[in-house]
Amino acid sequence: MELSAIYESVQDDLDKIEARLKSVSEVDFPHLAELLDYSLKSNGKRIRPVLTLLSGKFYDYNPDHLLPMATAVEIMHTATLIHDDAIDNSVVRRGRPTVYKIWGDEKAVLLGDYLFAEAGALTATTHNLRVIKLFAKTLKTISTGELNQAFNAFNLNQGRSEYLQRVTKKTASLFCMSTESGSALSQAPEESIQILIEYGHNLGIAFQIVDDILDFIGTEEELGKPIGSDLAQGTLTLPAILLLEHYPEDNPVKRLFNNRDEQENVKLAIESVRNSSIIEECYQVAADYGTKACQNLKLLPDKASRQSLFELADFIISRKR
Amino acid sequence: MELSAIYESVQDDLDKIEARLKSVSEVDFPHLAELLDYSLKSNGKRIRPVLTLLSGKFYDYNPDHLLPMATAVEIMHTATLIHDDAIDNSVVRRGRPTVYKIWGDEKAVLLGDYLFAEAGALTATTHNLRVIKLFAKTLKTISTGELNQAFNAFNLNQGRSEYLQRVTKKTASLFCMSTESGSALSQAPEESIQILIEYGHNLGIAFQIVDDILDFIGTEEELGKPIGSDLAQGTLTLPAILLLEHYPEDNPVKRLFNNRDEQENVKLAIESVRNSSIIEECYQVAADYGTKACQNLKLLPDKASRQSLFELADFIISRKR
Repeated sequence: MELSAIYESVQDDLDKIEARLKSVSEVDFPHLAELLDYSLKSNGKRIRPVLTLLSGKFYDYNPDHLLPMATAVEIMHTATLIHDDAIDNSVVRRGRPTVYKIWGDEKAVLLGDYLFAEAGALTATTHNLRVIKLFAKTLKTISTGELNQAFNAFNLNQGRSEYLQRVTKKTASLFCMSTESGSALSQAPEESIQILIEYGHNLGIAFQIVDDILDFIGTEEELGKPIGSDLAQGTLTLPAILLLEHYPEDNPVKRLFNNRDEQENVKLAIESVRNSSIIEECYQVAADYGTKACQNLKLLPDKASRQSLFELADFIISRKR
Repeated sequence: MELSAIYESVQDDLDKIEARLKSVSEVDFPHLAELLDYSLKSNGKRIRPVLTLLSGKFYDYNPDHLLPMATAVEIMHTATLIHDDAIDNSVVRRGRPTVYKIWGDEKAVLLGDYLFAEAGALTATTHNLRVIKLFAKTLKTISTGELNQAFNAFNLNQGRSEYLQRVTKKTASLFCMSTESGSALSQAPEESIQILIEYGHNLGIAFQIVDDILDFIGTEEELGKPIGSDLAQGTLTLPAILLLEHYPEDNPVKRLFNNRDEQENVKLAIESVRNSSIIEECYQVAADYGTKACQNLKLLPDKASRQSLFELADFIISRKR
């Protein structure tokens, strides 16, 4: 199923979010306007703001609060990507040169800061203290997850549980914020909010696992960035962890992390993963999280958005980009 | 007058803020705890949180809101310094190695993000939408000022008005946030809040001018960082602008910005500034902003904190570090 079909019930409001994202770059400082325009242009899948909109559809759907919140969620996501690219010296993302590549790390860091503030300002317009606090808490959580990743670069002593903890922080927390804010801003009862947080949590983990799979099996064209970049940066993701489990003795990941002979061992690790059952196993783990995400959705009101959430989970665990 | 004497009326609460800053590093992740402890340790002048406390003393002083807010102000300031140092590759600040120097730019960027979020979380505990919005707006303003500085590095085509605009954004905005939040959280009438915002605005400009003077006339020991670093990074500050005004033809700043023969021309620029009336002129501009800062303070209630604000302005325009 295509994303456009899954998004159908919220497409009108997603278009409004695109317009709002565009208007963020209407500032009285041409250099900043250019940076904002470039970084907020529609080229992502917009999954997070869609989660906010869909989660807001079950009860009292209020676009005056949901549209700025969903916009804030996407801007926060963009800010984290801009900082990530600057930190990792990544030159391509989504098939385009990164802000870091074009403008350098100085501007990338400051633009990210600006966007965090913009997202915070939009969140504050909801006047809802729960989501305002959630926003700050989530940014703390994401930064903690990223710091965890940074401090564990080239550390072989990490297994599935460390991986899942990190993914929960750096990726799933923003999915949770998307669904919690959408439901909280539409006066959902607490049980429903919790179901949607659980959905966001598990969907976020599934999303990241597939992302990490694609770093091994995708093509540069599909991903819009070089493959094997996680390993090259010393980040141990699920496929690499399974490769270490399968071949604990002679292993290209081990050699890479110990000797850092990058090119050769990254290539070998990718080949070893592709020529094994690891990808299948990883997809199975992602599918399990997809199932977990959906397990309590049936307790929510029977609205079109509920079906969309099921479909989105299906899309995410089988996506190719 | 010593800062300790000026701070006397709020010293007890400043001690509580130190304790709160310390407790920020009590997190369940030793690497992060170490980074937080290092960066929030008492070694700054704590001027901004003191401004929040003093501004809160005129009406309904409520430590339950003022203490977290003043803590947030200091944390936000710390976060901007950490990002600045990472961006500028600065290795020393306040006589200590920077986070960038010890842990690298990756951790510095992520730690700054974490601290922005921590400051936002503390601000949210006030449950006051005015200061929550002010927080986000101020971070946007600071980032814009810093981006302005970055885009104008080594640009000779900047005069006093560009300088003042930039300083207003990158420095004075946080001083304004400090006084506005303190007064707004203590139920000050709007006229009083505006007087304190005006104070913060002018004091912030005076503070930055003196900072920029010290980069020319200070010693590395006094400043805790190398002198001439603004010029070396291509930042045109007031003393350099006056040097260009005084000697429009042959000028080491011009040569530096055009040819970037750093060492020689930075040295020459410092000497030229020192051997001229420029420092005196700059101190006069700072003093004028100090006077402007204080001009309406007499309209505020006659409390001990009012006297402290007068004394703080005096301190700032004559400080040596």
